[in-house]
Amino acid sequence: MRSTMQDGALSITSILEYGATTFPKSSVITYLGDGAITFSYEDTAKRVASLANALTSIGIRDFDRVGTFAFNTQQHLEAYMAVPSMGAVIHTLNVRLFPDQLTFVINDAEDKVIIVDSVVLPLLAKVLPHTPTVQALIIVGPFDSKMLEPLNIDTYDYEDLIAAHSSTVHWPKIDEFQAAGMCYTSGTTGLPKGVVYSHRSTWLHAISSCSANTLGLSDTDRSMIVVPMFHVNAWGVPYSGWLAGCDLIMPSRFLQAEHLAKIIELYRPTLSSGVPTIWNDLLLYAETHDLDMSSFRGITGGGSAVPKKLMEGFKTRFGLELWQGWGMTETSPICTLGIPPRNTPENERMKYLLSAGRPLAGVQLRIVDESGTVMPKGVENLGEIEVSGPWITGSYYKNANPENFRDGWLRTGDIGTLDKEGYLRIVDRTKDVIKSGGEWISSVDLENEIMAFPGVYEAAVIGIPDDKWIERPLACVVPKPGSEVDPKALIDFLSTRVAKWWLPNKVTIVNEIPKTSVGKFDKKVLRKAFTDGDLNLISVDQ
Amino acid sequence: MRSTMQDGALSITSILEYGATTFPKSSVITYLGDGAITFSYEDTAKRVASLANALTSIGIRDFDRVGTFAFNTQQHLEAYMAVPSMGAVIHTLNVRLFPDQLTFVINDAEDKVIIVDSVVLPLLAKVLPHTPTVQALIIVGPFDSKMLEPLNIDTYDYEDLIAAHSSTVHWPKIDEFQAAGMCYTSGTTGLPKGVVYSHRSTWLHAISSCSANTLGLSDTDRSMIVVPMFHVNAWGVPYSGWLAGCDLIMPSRFLQAEHLAKIIELYRPTLSSGVPTIWNDLLLYAETHDLDMSSFRGITGGGSAVPKKLMEGFKTRFGLELWQGWGMTETSPICTLGIPPRNTPENERMKYLLSAGRPLAGVQLRIVDESGTVMPKGVENLGEIEVSGPWITGSYYKNANPENFRDGWLRTGDIGTLDKEGYLRIVDRTKDVIKSGGEWISSVDLENEIMAFPGVYEAAVIGIPDDKWIERPLACVVPKPGSEVDPKALIDFLSTRVAKWWLPNKVTIVNEIPKTSVGKFDKKVLRKAFTDGDLNLISVDQ
Repeated sequence: MRSTMQDGALSITSILEYGATTFPKSSVITYLGDGAITFSYEDTAKRVASLANALTSIGIRDFDRVGTFAFNTQQHLEAYMAVPSMGAVIHTLNVRLFPDQLTFVINDAEDKVIIVDSVVLPLLAKVLPHTPTVQALIIVGPFDSKMLEPLNIDTYDYEDLIAAHSSTVHWPKIDEFQAAGMCYTSGTTGLPKGVVYSHRSTWLHAISSCSANTLGLSDTDRSMIVVPMFHVNAWGVPYSGWLAGCDLIMPSRFLQAEHLAKIIELYRPTLSSGVPTIWNDLLLYAETHDLDMSSFRGITGGGSAVPKKLMEGFKTRFGLELWQGWGMTETSPICTLGIPPRNTPENERMKYLLSAGRPLAGVQLRIVDESGTVMPKGVENLGEIEVSGPWITGSYYKNANPENFRDGWLRTGDIGTLDKEGYLRIVDRTKDVIKSGGEWISSVDLENEIMAFPGVYEAAVIGIPDDKWIERPLACVVPKPGSEVDPKALIDFLSTRVAKWWLPNKVTIVNEIPKTSVGKFDKKVLRKAFTDGDLNLISVDQ
Repeated sequence: MRSTMQDGALSITSILEYGATTFPKSSVITYLGDGAITFSYEDTAKRVASLANALTSIGIRDFDRVGTFAFNTQQHLEAYMAVPSMGAVIHTLNVRLFPDQLTFVINDAEDKVIIVDSVVLPLLAKVLPHTPTVQALIIVGPFDSKMLEPLNIDTYDYEDLIAAHSSTVHWPKIDEFQAAGMCYTSGTTGLPKGVVYSHRSTWLHAISSCSANTLGLSDTDRSMIVVPMFHVNAWGVPYSGWLAGCDLIMPSRFLQAEHLAKIIELYRPTLSSGVPTIWNDLLLYAETHDLDMSSFRGITGGGSAVPKKLMEGFKTRFGLELWQGWGMTETSPICTLGIPPRNTPENERMKYLLSAGRPLAGVQLRIVDESGTVMPKGVENLGEIEVSGPWITGSYYKNANPENFRDGWLRTGDIGTLDKEGYLRIVDRTKDVIKSGGEWISSVDLENEIMAFPGVYEAAVIGIPDDKWIERPLACVVPKPGSEVDPKALIDFLSTRVAKWWLPNKVTIVNEIPKTSVGKFDKKVLRKAFTDGDLNLISVDQ
């Protein structure tokens, strides 16, 4: 028996039109370092229509891939809206990819046109001789056309191009299951793997993000979108925020603490999401500068575990809670958010804030042991986290790495527990967890404790071979500017906070923790440095 | 090109399981006049599983219709969850239907089992001899089995039945487009028409209701569910509230002001939705009793226009805004909600509060003139409101009244305007609007102004024949207890508030405005009283 309901396809077109007609006066603000550009939703929608007409005029048809190689800007948002609404597929390219990875993903996706910020055009230009599918570039910002001459490729100035096209458009009918966008995972091992989002998955992720138990986005919010739009879709806020009529504040490439501070002063955001490093930098900045964070009602952190010390710093200095989120390219990205349950007494909130949170409506989680058996809920049951739901990928593009899926669920590669209240705790990545004498040591937890030691700016822990225990933890520590870290004092400090057998036997002081293209600790590089004998190891007696 | 996303069917089963596992400690509280029963979500979910097993044991299979004839209670909520989750279809029966309508809807839907509150069992028993498809009753509360003997039908005590069945169940796989629930419109003309909700429509309506721009339901809320679950699905709050982990406060049949006051005192709700009559009664009650409404963060009114005077009363006495919602059985029901846009100055909020609001994410509205042409937005463009979206019906059950649909859109039978900010204003029902000298007079607006006159409790306006003007308005006025209304003074009052040609030439003082089974003004009855000469008309010179 079928219902009598209308099908009412869920689409990015409907997100676009709903926001533009319901919240015509909400704004998109792009900060440019020495100024800003602002467009209302109403005017943005007209520019979106012009962009779609322009893309049609240069040959983009259904399901053609349109790449973007850009920071968070007005124009990038327009591409987010126009490309899927016209029936094509937006492919966000990470501007921090190494050239060979960039070449691979452009060729794998067969991008036909790329919209590119002129400041990163030189990076793109380098790989274009090896990406034969790319027929045209649409360039945002001033550029030197001479540089492009040898490429023999059509180039357009973004603003000139859209100015030449009508701001009204008849959007095609959309099948909600059709492809809307693509993003490649930035795995530190193997080739990047493509994920293809649908109109449906994007709509559902957006509306669930707007629910009051989640980000609770509304037209009274102003969201500073710090997570890059080329990385996990900037937490989906370009879509969810627009659906909610939220002002969207785009920092472009200006993510340094002094710029963010200026944006916060000028535009008074109520919400922001970002990787912990960004918030750590901002907190450090606030130690020596005035920074008024009172416009915020919440800040979320994700991409890697938010250290307790950073949370405490935000609470103490700004009176703000940092809510952890957890997700990945494969999950659109938001799966969980760490808002404590109602009526949590003040002195118990940290317990929940330190978790990765509880699932959004629409997401299911389970913990699976090494034999593939689903374990009951309970903090004692540690295993791989698997996830399912309508905005979770069920495969990779071209069926890459099928072993990452089980019975339709995504195997995340994260190790964790799920407590009886439904809160998820991430213990480690499967490849980073340290196997010591038959027990697991969480590199994430250990890093968290090390970063609580005064004078430590950042720390990463890797497993190094040990004759007796198979593996033992090595602490790689970056002191704060002007500080020194005494390894012995650090271990004494740790000994009051972790089990004795977790204590690192060796410490190394480094200038920085290497990062991946999306800002995560790149432990592969640290392991190689260890193997090559490039680290200065300090043994610590216990 | 298809996405790589999981299908992730949207289902009531997933609402049930999400709420039960994410908010196990949230509560369902049923007020019983002289006490209450409370179950946690976790325990409620176990009872839901037992009910499903019980229904299976008495022969309910996929798509069988299970009727409910019940107030808002724990058990009714359990039926809301169990029946669709097991693959059957819940059909909510209005306990206030006339026997012939009740017989019709049971037979049209072919209900196989009916879950019934014992207090309304006598009403149901009367029609059962004429409803051959009904094989069994499941009765909530004490009942006299002798009354049922002549019916030769299986009867079960609800609590005994579920106690006899396991509280674990394996839910079947659901196709999100399949039927989940049915409700019949309570139109005052013609036969009731069936609407069949899907799992998908219910899920989408629920999640959109949770968004911060809408009801913003969260696990910090306690919702007092005043709108009956047999009428427009109680605004869908049994599903949206559960999805949000909100405490659900069920008043059973105790909707009188003194009972609601006690519920408010005992359970401190944060939200409630109801018809204006309910709130009017509560305001009247508060004139002579202490009533602490400080637990509320919002109250919504719908079903008919909320009079300005009522809004002002709530604001003055309780400091609360009444938000209007608009929707109907055909629309699941919420289409719009009248929360003012951000940054609305205090002195302009009433303008928005008096509107029916702006559409929820997922809903599209348009205004169509008498020739069927879609009109541009603007308050000057008055016409029939049409609506589309994934929780709006695209037809009636058995294809009844196909003329109510146009190009896949629902024709609502409401006359209104849509302003440039997307706010809807309901002017009247097509059948109630008064055509006077070629112009339209809104009976709703006129009633609103009459109800602002001191001493008026309620008022309805109908069009009566006029030789010169075709139709002229007749004001039917109910004075407050202990008050009198002077027709001449009323018209003098109105003359400062409406156009001269809107002023009624005749007034009648009545004891009450007749109401339909869902509490709306039944103008059909008033028109018949006028035609039959049963109204005492007072002419008012102007």
